[in-house]
Amino acid sequence: MPYVTVKMLEGRSDEQKKSLVEKVTDAVSETTGAPKANITVFIEEMSKNHYAVGGVRASDK
Amino acid sequence: MPYVTVKMLEGRSDEQKKSLVEKVTDAVSETTGAPKANITVFIEEMSKNHYAVGGVRASDK
Amino acid sequence: MPYVTVKMLEGRSDEQKKSLVEKVTDAVSETTGAPKANITVFIEEMSKNHYAVGGVRASDK
Amino acid sequence: MPYVTVKMLEGRSDEQKKSLVEKVTDAVSETTGAPKANITVFIEEMSKNHYAVGGVRASDK
Amino acid sequence: MPYVTVKMLEGRSDEQKKSLVEKVTDAVSETTGAPKANITVFIEEMSKNHYAVGGVRASDK
Amino acid sequence: MPYVTVKMLEGRSDEQKKSLVEKVTDAVSETTGAPKANITVFIEEMSKNHYAVGGVRASDK
Repeated sequence: MPYVTVKMLEGRSDEQKKSLVEKVTDAVSETTGAPKANITVFIEEMSKNHYAVGGVRASDK
Repeated sequence: MPYVTVKMLEGRSDEQKKSLVEKVTDAVSETTGAPKANITVFIEEMSKNHYAVGGVRASDK
Repeated sequence: MPYVTVKMLEGRSDEQKKSLVEKVTDAVSETTGAPKANITVFIEEMSKNHYAVGGVRASDK
Repeated sequence: MPYVTVKMLEGRSDEQKKSLVEKVTDAVSETTGAPKANITVFIEEMSKNHYAVGGVRASDK
Repeated sequence: MPYVTVKMLEGRSDEQKKSLVEKVTDAVSETTGAPKANITVFIEEMSKNHYAVGGVRASDK
Repeated sequence: MPYVTVKMLEGRSDEQKKSLVEKVTDAVSETTGAPKANITVFIEEMSKNHYAVGGVRASDK
């Protein structure tokens, strides 16, 4: 605890994802007081045809 | 806001998904009063071996 | 199937929520071909201090 | 109702997943009193580079 | 790992919830081979006016 | 995009939550390159009787 889920479009590099989970874990630990070892991060990727804002998918822009 | 997630078995065509996000966005805007530009829709697909009702997966029927 | 989750700030009336689930169910049925009886809708409400865009919570605006 | 989601690293066999949904459905039915036919189970798999504990992804260990 | 979420209508007793997490943890451990200590269970409750099947909320039946 | 959900036990102060969403937004922006204005953070709180590790709820320890 806490459990963090980051949902984003696919396309980030593996290096970016590695850095993402490190920095997010630091930010959560620093602000909640939870030890880093207790913090879990999940990345969920979505494709452009499965994500829409205002009724228009990212793949249709 | 609002954020809508539609979870369904894989297999719908891209045209169906495009229409789905359009119509769902319209329905949410009309009933909540939120402007369409503020409404986000996510589609999540699952495979038949990852979905079960009554303890039986769709892939085992 | 499908399963739809609508996540939004608290404050909509019960009448709006009733209409929301009806219209969303119609939209999903019409575009995916799923019978209405097979469609599930969940509403999830969040409070203004638990929702932030751009690092600023709705409660801090 | 209820709806159960099991999120885990990819790699389990299809036989394990079949058994997983059967046993989880039984456990939920037995303890909540819900008929098995009303219980839904979703499996969500994640890859090792999308899952981190303590800021370190399973793929970086 | 694994992480299990059980989403259900409010109304179960605390004793039922205690039993639910015990039995579900056992079922997941037995079928996936994960040690019980590594298994997390979340319960999410919903109210009857936030849950609909076939476009009709549980609170409107 | 991205959308971040932080799920944790209830009990953090409002000041901690405010700081949490700020720092997490910074961390996500810095590592993914997404503008801060495009990043959404949701906080989800759970009570101790709805959260279990190893089959034992936090409320039963």
